[in-house]
Amino acid sequence: MKVLVNNQLIERVEAKIDIEDRGYQFGDGVYEVVRAYNGQFFTYEEHIDRLYASANKIDLVIPFEKAELRELLEGLLKANNIGTGNVYLQVTRGIQSPRNHVVPDLPLEGVLTASASEVSRDTTLFEQGRKAILEEDVRWLRCDIKSLNLLGNTMAKNKAHQAGAFEAILHRGEEVTEGSSTNAYIIKNGTLITHAADNLILSGITRQVILKVARDIGVPVAETGFTLTDLAAADEVFISSTTIEVTPIIEIDGKQVSDGKRGPITKKIHDAFAAEVLKQCGELAFS
Amino acid sequence: MKVLVNNQLIERVEAKIDIEDRGYQFGDGVYEVVRAYNGQFFTYEEHIDRLYASANKIDLVIPFEKAELRELLEGLLKANNIGTGNVYLQVTRGIQSPRNHVVPDLPLEGVLTASASEVSRDTTLFEQGRKAILEEDVRWLRCDIKSLNLLGNTMAKNKAHQAGAFEAILHRGEEVTEGSSTNAYIIKNGTLITHAADNLILSGITRQVILKVARDIGVPVAETGFTLTDLAAADEVFISSTTIEVTPIIEIDGKQVSDGKRGPITKKIHDAFAAEVLKQCGELAFS
Repeated sequence: MKVLVNNQLIERVEAKIDIEDRGYQFGDGVYEVVRAYNGQFFTYEEHIDRLYASANKIDLVIPFEKAELRELLEGLLKANNIGTGNVYLQVTRGIQSPRNHVVPDLPLEGVLTASASEVSRDTTLFEQGRKAILEEDVRWLRCDIKSLNLLGNTMAKNKAHQAGAFEAILHRGEEVTEGSSTNAYIIKNGTLITHAADNLILSGITRQVILKVARDIGVPVAETGFTLTDLAAADEVFISSTTIEVTPIIEIDGKQVSDGKRGPITKKIHDAFAAEVLKQCGELAFS
Repeated sequence: MKVLVNNQLIERVEAKIDIEDRGYQFGDGVYEVVRAYNGQFFTYEEHIDRLYASANKIDLVIPFEKAELRELLEGLLKANNIGTGNVYLQVTRGIQSPRNHVVPDLPLEGVLTASASEVSRDTTLFEQGRKAILEEDVRWLRCDIKSLNLLGNTMAKNKAHQAGAFEAILHRGEEVTEGSSTNAYIIKNGTLITHAADNLILSGITRQVILKVARDIGVPVAETGFTLTDLAAADEVFISSTTIEVTPIIEIDGKQVSDGKRGPITKKIHDAFAAEVLKQCGELAFS
């Protein structure tokens, strides 16, 4: 297995970083997960644009031009013979010794690490759906930045795991924000409702595709957000992310959602999403 | 220069960690900074107890018994001939490959890294004080955990630095919480006022010493918190941390605090703090 450390493709076991990398001491970095189908990246530009946007929000300089980064990531995909799988990449602000909250006035050299793994589509996710729990959203107020400060997310996800659930749906008081590593949606009276892409959620790339295809197939979209009460009364509930596409939520805190099966509009939206994948990644995308 | 990686004292340049350490990908870890005076740790037990308490709050297992950890950290201090200086240590949840928000059911092996540096007392801090800016506190709601998720802190600190100030004093709306890497206090009509040690601030070890010595010398203490309005009308303002002890704030957002000099009660409290250091670390503590 080969991974990227900066612009070098090296063996996984040799991939080390410095103990005073600011990513290690402050979570001072940004990341993306890009999915490939049939050896082709899906929504690549959108992910990479978001990476640079996240970096910009924290004044971090990505140490590569976009064209160079694309070459590196495509090389990583090929070196590991990935057909359908995920590329994880992160860029930290770099090494600062001794440790200091204050960064030097001249930017540090950022550190890129990236790895790729073959992960086939899990159709049981999409067809059977999964259980969720509810958790108070205690994260910071800049969830629009896809940063390495993920402790609030992982704590919620682990609570879900311990409860035998797949995801924790987060809420600030009555207001539902998103899942711990997903965006969250309800369908009510035929309308797709989700939180606005403000500072309280990550503007998911899969979310953007979903909203587009939903509109294309005539499903009204409301980015008005929804409450816990709305969630309990929803006709359908689903979550989305780069790796899990459109996954129905069939039970929340032990209470069944509607009839406990994937809803018809959720299925229609997922079909339209899959058509987008086929369009971008070719006919073998789901082979 | 020698550093610790787990229980090994190694050369700084050889100290590397794995790219899939959860500390690097999620900020999934906890840390402490312990100060030594005259080769002796100050408030060592308090710091280490807090390290284990922080770890416990995120279900992270520190991979050492307290006695073993003390031996390692004292060895680090001696190996680097530290008289007056700081030991930085952090423990992450360990390596998980491939990356996953969900941790395995069996705990991972935690990773300890620690370094030590000679840093003398900067008496200009204490005597002249420093400037601060005000910043909205956008951090998560578990600031009681001394975790590696520090992006909100470093962003505020860097904003202060860019404004020519030493610290950013954070506030949630009207309510002042703490500094970006310090606790914050005001003196009003002879009373020392600071935020309660709840989930919105870190319960500083220096803060605990300050509250104790203030009471000892007859300064009334109110852990009631204070507002931006209270701050603007304060008789004296100071901040504290392990490395900066009791540092007066003499200007906030360009506006002078009182007469722009260290206040008399701030000085009294710092003198009492210094007496505690002398008591624990011996007569040569400030030599």
